[in-house]
Amino acid sequence: MQEQALDFDQLEVGYDIPARPGMALSQVQTPALIIDLDAFESNIARLQADCDAKGVALRVHGKMHKCATAAHYQIAQGAVGICCQKMSEAESFARAGIKDILLSNQVRDPLKIDRLARLPKLGCKLSVCVDDAQNIEALSQAAGKHGIELDILVELESGAGRCGVGAGQPALELAQAIISAPHLSFKGLQAYCGTAQHIYDYEGRKAAIDKTIEEAKVTKELLESHGIPCEIITGAGTGTYPMEAASGVYTEMQCGSYAFMDADYQRVLDEDGKPLLHFQNALFIFTSIMSVAKQGGAICDAGLKSQSLNLAFPQFMAAPIYAMRLARMSMAILLTRMACCAPMINCCWCPAIATRPATCTTIMSVSEGTKLKPFGPSLHGASLSKSWRL
Amino acid sequence: MQEQALDFDQLEVGYDIPARPGMALSQVQTPALIIDLDAFESNIARLQADCDAKGVALRVHGKMHKCATAAHYQIAQGAVGICCQKMSEAESFARAGIKDILLSNQVRDPLKIDRLARLPKLGCKLSVCVDDAQNIEALSQAAGKHGIELDILVELESGAGRCGVGAGQPALELAQAIISAPHLSFKGLQAYCGTAQHIYDYEGRKAAIDKTIEEAKVTKELLESHGIPCEIITGAGTGTYPMEAASGVYTEMQCGSYAFMDADYQRVLDEDGKPLLHFQNALFIFTSIMSVAKQGGAICDAGLKSQSLNLAFPQFMAAPIYAMRLARMSMAILLTRMACCAPMINCCWCPAIATRPATCTTIMSVSEGTKLKPFGPSLHGASLSKSWRL
Repeated sequence: MQEQALDFDQLEVGYDIPARPGMALSQVQTPALIIDLDAFESNIARLQADCDAKGVALRVHGKMHKCATAAHYQIAQGAVGICCQKMSEAESFARAGIKDILLSNQVRDPLKIDRLARLPKLGCKLSVCVDDAQNIEALSQAAGKHGIELDILVELESGAGRCGVGAGQPALELAQAIISAPHLSFKGLQAYCGTAQHIYDYEGRKAAIDKTIEEAKVTKELLESHGIPCEIITGAGTGTYPMEAASGVYTEMQCGSYAFMDADYQRVLDEDGKPLLHFQNALFIFTSIMSVAKQGGAICDAGLKSQSLNLAFPQFMAAPIYAMRLARMSMAILLTRMACCAPMINCCWCPAIATRPATCTTIMSVSEGTKLKPFGPSLHGASLSKSWRL
Repeated sequence: MQEQALDFDQLEVGYDIPARPGMALSQVQTPALIIDLDAFESNIARLQADCDAKGVALRVHGKMHKCATAAHYQIAQGAVGICCQKMSEAESFARAGIKDILLSNQVRDPLKIDRLARLPKLGCKLSVCVDDAQNIEALSQAAGKHGIELDILVELESGAGRCGVGAGQPALELAQAIISAPHLSFKGLQAYCGTAQHIYDYEGRKAAIDKTIEEAKVTKELLESHGIPCEIITGAGTGTYPMEAASGVYTEMQCGSYAFMDADYQRVLDEDGKPLLHFQNALFIFTSIMSVAKQGGAICDAGLKSQSLNLAFPQFMAAPIYAMRLARMSMAILLTRMACCAPMINCCWCPAIATRPATCTTIMSVSEGTKLKPFGPSLHGASLSKSWRL
């Protein structure tokens, strides 16, 4: 794990950072993000092994953690590079030394396109998705202006109802436009069905992905019949990657959540109706109690602004836990007067909250004796600014 | 409005800042926060006039904007000071020169209490709430250690089911403990019913606040009957302040949301069943379109991580707007291929989204000609790092 060159002597605990290296968990200024490094490393190894076994590349999604330290570790363990979802993420990863970046989204604003075309000068291989002919022209002009070549993927609309063109003919037309445009190289297709990742039921999830795979396959074959090979077919997420990896169509997996996991993935079931437990929750909010005036309860210092509730409610790991209640504007947690460890995941879309009993035991059993180490700052502009590892 | 001493020459548009002073709205790197300063100043003036007319002090809540520039302006217009909800907010406001701060919450962690007791040395008057006798002892010791006096309020549990002791005897006992403790001054009561602020129905909202007011009144009278005067009774929010201000019990209003407003407050109705429209939406997300591949629709670049959905869905101001759809993991907005102005409020608890037709007209009519000026960075550590004003 690459250490960050932070000058801790210049930083004030509480105001600038939640803790100093070597502090015990009980000294951390809460709320703070804590990474269980054993769980994190286990997750990285597990998915890499799965991808290696299936003969597909792993391009980890950096929008999940927005942390170059984590990305460098994932690449050191075998990932071919990262994806990211925004220009500002791509710039931050490139400046942090990531050498292979797919901007798995559209970039349309003229100034952003110019920023994009300047990035390869930082020494990174850069690719980007398109779903519109005008965009191809704008990207080509910017690449020419800055004297670079850009790798381009055509994005297929794959069920999320967002960006992407339809499978087949519309994708073929864009591929042909890319090939005709100077300074651009057509590399293949992106077919990512985000909405399928959290379909709890295995059959429902499989049906959604089967459709996505079929559309990618049909489009690939159409392009090949026109003499256009697809070097890359990229997509897949934590909830569905075994299906895309086994499809024979995909060459590259874009999983992100698996590295830290989130609570909602506990509800996603495998073929046998059991939770997908091969990835562990690895990112937690460490919080402390600030009021026990309420009879039989306590209030912690991690409120709504410390997390996000878009996908799943927080789950608490401290024992004994009596109950939990989510008030409209704040969270009142009923537990004993002790520091509690609330697991948190900054998942693909937003910070969510996660737990598993095993992780609870892991964290709580080391809460007194374990010394903290810095994990690494998150990207420039990201809201989770510093993380700490056990 | 106090200008911030930012060195814009050292900052890169897109990576560091969304725009430079003097840029047109069309050049802003999106998503970006935009403040309608006319609306903001009108809101500040309106609430200050209301409080002045009722003879109550206004202590604006800084957790809404977490921006010292905004707080300095509110104080210059007549506010007695600010409240904030966390130690890190109090430190940031104090370092930014705010001279009168109420930490309207409990501070329990020993290191945080030490940080609290160091703050008055920065030249600010500081008060804090308590709901527990042990906390009084800890605050007293820290104040003694650092050679300062701390002003203390007893927090009443006022309907939110969070911090605070019961009205009457429990509050009296805490007041007596404060008076007995060295280095502490008992100042009065905090009785804030957060859950009442967004009760849409006027009668329901009034019933909740009448109960809160009655409990504050009973407690104040009990303390007075024991020779303990309450110099301050503080509470109230944007949704209910006319009730507390007219009560004859409260001396101080803690409104926060009124300065920028949020979408949900449009649903809060007055006595006549009409929306409370005397405050205007003043904070917006400026976003741009990145895909129009979807038939009849478009996708913008302000996703879930650019906002929060805890309280209300975003509402869009660009015309013509055809429809809007909130997918599970991203937001697809169906509108024309144009930059759109989505109004946003970082409300009391989290960033939420707001709009009103009048504001729409205001923003859109100036979108081409208006030059941007920096408004001011938000507090150290806050997630909304820079705002711009029209």
